[in-house]
Amino acid sequence: MVSNRYAVVAMKPLVVLNFKTYLESTGDNALKLAGVCDDVARETGARVVVVPQLVDLRMVVDSVSIPVYAQTVDNVKAGSNTGHVLAEAVKEAGASGSLLNHSECRLRLADIDASVAKLRELKMASIVCTNNVAVTSAAAALGPDYVAVEPPELIGSGVSVSKAQPEVITGSVDAVKRVNGRVSVLCGAGISTGEDLRKAVELGTEGVLLASGIIKAKDQRAALLELVQGMQ
Amino acid sequence: MVSNRYAVVAMKPLVVLNFKTYLESTGDNALKLAGVCDDVARETGARVVVVPQLVDLRMVVDSVSIPVYAQTVDNVKAGSNTGHVLAEAVKEAGASGSLLNHSECRLRLADIDASVAKLRELKMASIVCTNNVAVTSAAAALGPDYVAVEPPELIGSGVSVSKAQPEVITGSVDAVKRVNGRVSVLCGAGISTGEDLRKAVELGTEGVLLASGIIKAKDQRAALLELVQGMQ
Amino acid sequence: MVSNRYAVVAMKPLVVLNFKTYLESTGDNALKLAGVCDDVARETGARVVVVPQLVDLRMVVDSVSIPVYAQTVDNVKAGSNTGHVLAEAVKEAGASGSLLNHSECRLRLADIDASVAKLRELKMASIVCTNNVAVTSAAAALGPDYVAVEPPELIGSGVSVSKAQPEVITGSVDAVKRVNGRVSVLCGAGISTGEDLRKAVELGTEGVLLASGIIKAKDQRAALLELVQGMQ
Amino acid sequence: MVSNRYAVVAMKPLVVLNFKTYLESTGDNALKLAGVCDDVARETGARVVVVPQLVDLRMVVDSVSIPVYAQTVDNVKAGSNTGHVLAEAVKEAGASGSLLNHSECRLRLADIDASVAKLRELKMASIVCTNNVAVTSAAAALGPDYVAVEPPELIGSGVSVSKAQPEVITGSVDAVKRVNGRVSVLCGAGISTGEDLRKAVELGTEGVLLASGIIKAKDQRAALLELVQGMQ
Repeated sequence: MVSNRYAVVAMKPLVVLNFKTYLESTGDNALKLAGVCDDVARETGARVVVVPQLVDLRMVVDSVSIPVYAQTVDNVKAGSNTGHVLAEAVKEAGASGSLLNHSECRLRLADIDASVAKLRELKMASIVCTNNVAVTSAAAALGPDYVAVEPPELIGSGVSVSKAQPEVITGSVDAVKRVNGRVSVLCGAGISTGEDLRKAVELGTEGVLLASGIIKAKDQRAALLELVQGMQ
Repeated sequence: MVSNRYAVVAMKPLVVLNFKTYLESTGDNALKLAGVCDDVARETGARVVVVPQLVDLRMVVDSVSIPVYAQTVDNVKAGSNTGHVLAEAVKEAGASGSLLNHSECRLRLADIDASVAKLRELKMASIVCTNNVAVTSAAAALGPDYVAVEPPELIGSGVSVSKAQPEVITGSVDAVKRVNGRVSVLCGAGISTGEDLRKAVELGTEGVLLASGIIKAKDQRAALLELVQGMQ
Repeated sequence: MVSNRYAVVAMKPLVVLNFKTYLESTGDNALKLAGVCDDVARETGARVVVVPQLVDLRMVVDSVSIPVYAQTVDNVKAGSNTGHVLAEAVKEAGASGSLLNHSECRLRLADIDASVAKLRELKMASIVCTNNVAVTSAAAALGPDYVAVEPPELIGSGVSVSKAQPEVITGSVDAVKRVNGRVSVLCGAGISTGEDLRKAVELGTEGVLLASGIIKAKDQRAALLELVQGMQ
Repeated sequence: MVSNRYAVVAMKPLVVLNFKTYLESTGDNALKLAGVCDDVARETGARVVVVPQLVDLRMVVDSVSIPVYAQTVDNVKAGSNTGHVLAEAVKEAGASGSLLNHSECRLRLADIDASVAKLRELKMASIVCTNNVAVTSAAAALGPDYVAVEPPELIGSGVSVSKAQPEVITGSVDAVKRVNGRVSVLCGAGISTGEDLRKAVELGTEGVLLASGIIKAKDQRAALLELVQGMQ
């Protein structure tokens, strides 16, 4: 589990890469991209988490040493369910955390709560995605490890939230401090460069959640290197 | 709008009656039951809100002077939507508030936030239903007028939450105070008697949200009278 | 109920006007527009059905003599449901039918089946919306009164399906004949003029389902008159 | 792909085993159970398909030679989706088909249609689950490889549909013949014994879809052997 509980001042920012259902990060391509992330993490000391599709998850776990998260889990118990994502099964496959409530996979409030609690019980990390300061406050009240603020209109836009709406980030950081100081904030939507990452950290977040900025890059390795070295 | 913003110590507790889709509270029966509520409110000074089905809402508004709320509204804008509940349309019909996220109508977190904000903008009251203390905290962070705590296993059970799980109520009251002191707490699930209501108020809530305890009673008027007079 | 069971050759085409959640067809505006439809139907002999929002439905029923349908009903039984549309309640309010599975309100297959059966039991008409020939066949197998074919990409486009994709209409008419000859076909998406309606009828449908073409017109009455008189 | 297109009279019935989210068929247990199915298929000549959870799918594919299906796929295109099941990804992982619309994972009609078409395009088999004769007819109109009729009240009941409601099976077989003769019928709900399977085949189906009858058996191998040998 990527834990922020004992973070020290000099800790590197966290980079969470959501593979979504892009062909550039599916199957063999998921394996290659995860390998790139693993290499870059080893070479630079960057903290990188990869979030492949469920069907690729175990294979990615078996090939890298960085943490692997699921894109979502469902609020179901072991038993008579079909087509659902059982947190226990995801854990057994080697995932150490999960996104929840991504803007492309919005969940009911009670289900977010139940899944955050279930992941905590399984000693897995949870990242609850949110879309504004009020929803960030609400999500923080549920006690996940992270909230990731992503104004929906900026997702995939190439315009980084840290530039376009810095007040959403600082407002979220302040709100989380008030509601539950043990929750960390990530910054998403439109992130692709080292400058975006540096700005996100300056605004008080622990790192970024991103996807297309790296996955759709002509040279994924170069893009990731630029991102994590923008910090240095 | 039923506002709790300037409540005085002696203010009577709030009784919110959800008509659900019971035949005993549909159509002509909705009109009769709303009339009973209106009478009892006038006779006893009790504060009663009725929550009929949408198709009955305007007719109920036209026949009573107590507040009428919708059972839910959808997070949609005026425009090209079919089968949705537009908050503006509900307001024009005379509703002064709405339930949101009832356990039988759970909503996505981002939709609860958007609908609370929309209702506020329309000067309508919002009651966000919740199922435990963590979810109550999250809902309070969105700034609705009320949260109504209802442990799902007690809904329709005849066993009142104020007796069976008083710690859920007091925990919710405490959590709301910490997160947003302007939000009031209602207590739901298994409420039917004046003693239940009295207990709910003693635990720090402003009143109750209930349904079957009154609607399925042999004598709805007698049941409602007993409920509101249990306070006296 | 608008029945097509005993249609004679000379029967006028059916025009079903979906009010959606446009402000131009909400509340007082719903009443005015329904009045226009009622007048035009009386003056021209056209068969017009209006489909207002649920909260406006009973008021519209009370003010016109043409049939009024709901925009959807839910697959729930009378009882402990909140925020749902009970078919029995809609019937008691005076509706004589309902749309089902509109592209803005897609339903699960088993729910369409249950709602078609429930509406039939209540002697209410059902119009199941579909998006292509295969789905039209499937919907017809459930035995509704009507299927309304609407290629989603043309909805609200101003480009009528009868011109842009006539093969979808004729394919649907043929498919329905094979599967269940008692089901009638309506044509939706992009319909606004009398010529669109005439073309739809020539292609073998019984009429049209439309919305913005009339509702967003500068002069709703003139637009509706032009539509129904295009046939003459 | 398990194809029924060139079935000969003497072809063995098809047994589709849905692993659901039972712990007895998750992770290592999924691998063991798939191994049992693979062994029994080889030893007896039975046609067995296994349907593990998505996170276990590729691992199961890599360890057996019988066909492996997914429990569902989503109607999404490669691209910007999170938490969804991309059919192309499932195919790349080695699945040769998918269940769709299981009673525990009901889908919208238009999504079933799109996914049946997508699976066909990928040369993967599709099994659309249904709950009664009308829905079976509708599903058959979409042209999947199989429909699997499962009256919901019998799922997991231990009471087999072939005994309790044989008319649902024969009605479904007849309906499918009328609508699309190339579609095969499977029989689900309450199936656990060889006699159930024999009865299902006598009623005109090509085999069975089952889960708990095998998965929750004390001896999964013995239960599966008894099932497939009940035919001999």
